[in-house]
Amino acid sequence: MSSAPHSPIMAMTPTIQSALSRYHSEIDSALRATLSSVLQEGLASGANDLQTYYGLLQYHLGWVDAQFSPIHNNSGKLLRPTLLLLAYEAAGAWDLDTSDHAYLQRALPAAVSVELAHNFTLIHDDIEDGDAERRHRSTLWKLWGVPQAINAGDGMFALARLSLWGVLEQGVEGMIAARLGQALDQACLILAEGQYLDISFEQLQTISVSTYIDMIYRKTGALMQCATHMGALLGTRDQETIDSLTQFGQAIGIAFQMRDDMLGVWASTAELGKTPAGDIYRRKKSLPILHALEHASPTEQQILRSIYQQESPVSEKQVEQVLTIFEHTKTRAYCRLFLAEHCRQAFEALHNVPPSPQSVATRARADMEALVHFIANMPHA
Amino acid sequence: MSSAPHSPIMAMTPTIQSALSRYHSEIDSALRATLSSVLQEGLASGANDLQTYYGLLQYHLGWVDAQFSPIHNNSGKLLRPTLLLLAYEAAGAWDLDTSDHAYLQRALPAAVSVELAHNFTLIHDDIEDGDAERRHRSTLWKLWGVPQAINAGDGMFALARLSLWGVLEQGVEGMIAARLGQALDQACLILAEGQYLDISFEQLQTISVSTYIDMIYRKTGALMQCATHMGALLGTRDQETIDSLTQFGQAIGIAFQMRDDMLGVWASTAELGKTPAGDIYRRKKSLPILHALEHASPTEQQILRSIYQQESPVSEKQVEQVLTIFEHTKTRAYCRLFLAEHCRQAFEALHNVPPSPQSVATRARADMEALVHFIANMPHA
Repeated sequence: MSSAPHSPIMAMTPTIQSALSRYHSEIDSALRATLSSVLQEGLASGANDLQTYYGLLQYHLGWVDAQFSPIHNNSGKLLRPTLLLLAYEAAGAWDLDTSDHAYLQRALPAAVSVELAHNFTLIHDDIEDGDAERRHRSTLWKLWGVPQAINAGDGMFALARLSLWGVLEQGVEGMIAARLGQALDQACLILAEGQYLDISFEQLQTISVSTYIDMIYRKTGALMQCATHMGALLGTRDQETIDSLTQFGQAIGIAFQMRDDMLGVWASTAELGKTPAGDIYRRKKSLPILHALEHASPTEQQILRSIYQQESPVSEKQVEQVLTIFEHTKTRAYCRLFLAEHCRQAFEALHNVPPSPQSVATRARADMEALVHFIANMPHA
Repeated sequence: MSSAPHSPIMAMTPTIQSALSRYHSEIDSALRATLSSVLQEGLASGANDLQTYYGLLQYHLGWVDAQFSPIHNNSGKLLRPTLLLLAYEAAGAWDLDTSDHAYLQRALPAAVSVELAHNFTLIHDDIEDGDAERRHRSTLWKLWGVPQAINAGDGMFALARLSLWGVLEQGVEGMIAARLGQALDQACLILAEGQYLDISFEQLQTISVSTYIDMIYRKTGALMQCATHMGALLGTRDQETIDSLTQFGQAIGIAFQMRDDMLGVWASTAELGKTPAGDIYRRKKSLPILHALEHASPTEQQILRSIYQQESPVSEKQVEQVLTIFEHTKTRAYCRLFLAEHCRQAFEALHNVPPSPQSVATRARADMEALVHFIANMPHA
């Protein structure tokens, strides 16, 4: 079992969906063009077998089935590249002609880069966690074995980095390109640190709330922070704006994860399409249980520990017991406060970004605010 | 069983050893400083557990034992970073004050980068090949399990990339730094492609000589080519010099692997410290067997196939049989010719580099020539 914190944004409002879908087709096309281009290079060098190698990567991205036939796009929400492009626009884009979508080309290689980096981590996480399915499809290691899956992840990681250099062809100057590479590398190292902590946690009897928060910053916050940081680097030279947008990414990343942790315990099936209290049934080590363990009475701690350590499946009655203890420990209120605090930080960061006369900047800020509102408001959880 | 082509340079002559040891302590110090620096950052952020994470990386690099106590340095030959620094010097270094070793600082972050990238591939190859030992020590996955080992490799990969940006602090301009990143990323993708082919080969009945050569270019040639390319990018602006040094790296990389393939079959124990014909006992799919399979009579092909496919260990008598068939197919002569051709290409590439008045450039060229001579001359194989 893993506390691996990735899950799609559920039950989205129309406003959020429009913000998330605005760049969807551009990002999707750029991702496909990136894969096609390296495959063509591989084939040109005479290595026909590479078609299968890149088939594995395309399968993971949801574009083809296990026989490498194209399927209806089953790709993710593209949240990280979208955040990157929103930050790029919100940063001001003072010098850019934004009369058509062409100015987006300048930032697309970086957007592709963060999405591929995210997918690299998913491929390896699935192996490390022993997860046989992701988005209702068999995972790479399940279909092609662990060695090829590790190596497919490595290729995805290398490609994530390689695709970034497309910014040079878009006229981005060398020093900015190098800073983008540095930001991505820093985030990827922090992700690996986070994954180390996450795997270690499975062997620990007790994980403190503060250690857990450090872990989710590394596993979820760092790449979202990296996305807005990279977008800002491409959109402005103003260091304060860059810093504010970077803080926005970090705050929203942690808030996203917290929202997910709360939904995993308190949301209903109707809202989520998943089992209520699913994270309790799965004994997921997320914030609620860790908070409760730190604040419950010795007797209740004992109950929680025995439920989370037993071999047999968690019963409905035990879930009720856990939820009752969460009430005693005011765990839901704590989680709400934690979520609200990170949403407040995200708003504050956004308010520190100077307004721009560019209409795309105004629209991007509005989208980012809507995103924070969406995360902050959880009427049912 | 794997055809994974990495092994140290054996039985080196004093000339080669002096070339390889010239920068050894600088590279070693820079590697250690890189690891210390990220560990300090991790600790500063409050995550004490990261000490263990970086302990895994240090263990792999041969600096500590499994309890993370320092041990006598058991690190590798540092061949790739040495090639990088040799190419850097040979490129001319026209504008640099080479009166002391300080000018090396400019290239050291890139040297660290290729060595860490190489080590990342070793960590993952060991998992993918199921190798429990490397350099007479247990491998990471054997000691800490597959999930942590995959993730340690990922961290090593991220750190390989992150360490490169140290060139910016050394005054290397942004565009050159970005080109260095691009060169490294390109090589890492090609390495992953090569590893894909290598793993696939284990399931194939027949691998052609040309496919094998394509594979060793990707697995061994690409990173050595990348090393000399990066060194050249740091040492000169002259595109022809950069191209020639890049070609040198590719040719010497393939020649190295070929030399290793030949030693694996025809060298004696005294020369190598390993079993003669060890690669036949191990049924390694290297060039000699692939060449023989393509040129043997149908009856002899049948013998080779049955020996290489049998469940039981290869007997001494069978090794003799294989060696006799190699004689019939003139396999040793073919391998010698192949090696000689790549050494010739390496010499040619080196001769295309314009001479420099800098004494370090002259010395570097002499070292590189000595290296090619060393690889080319195999009296006993």
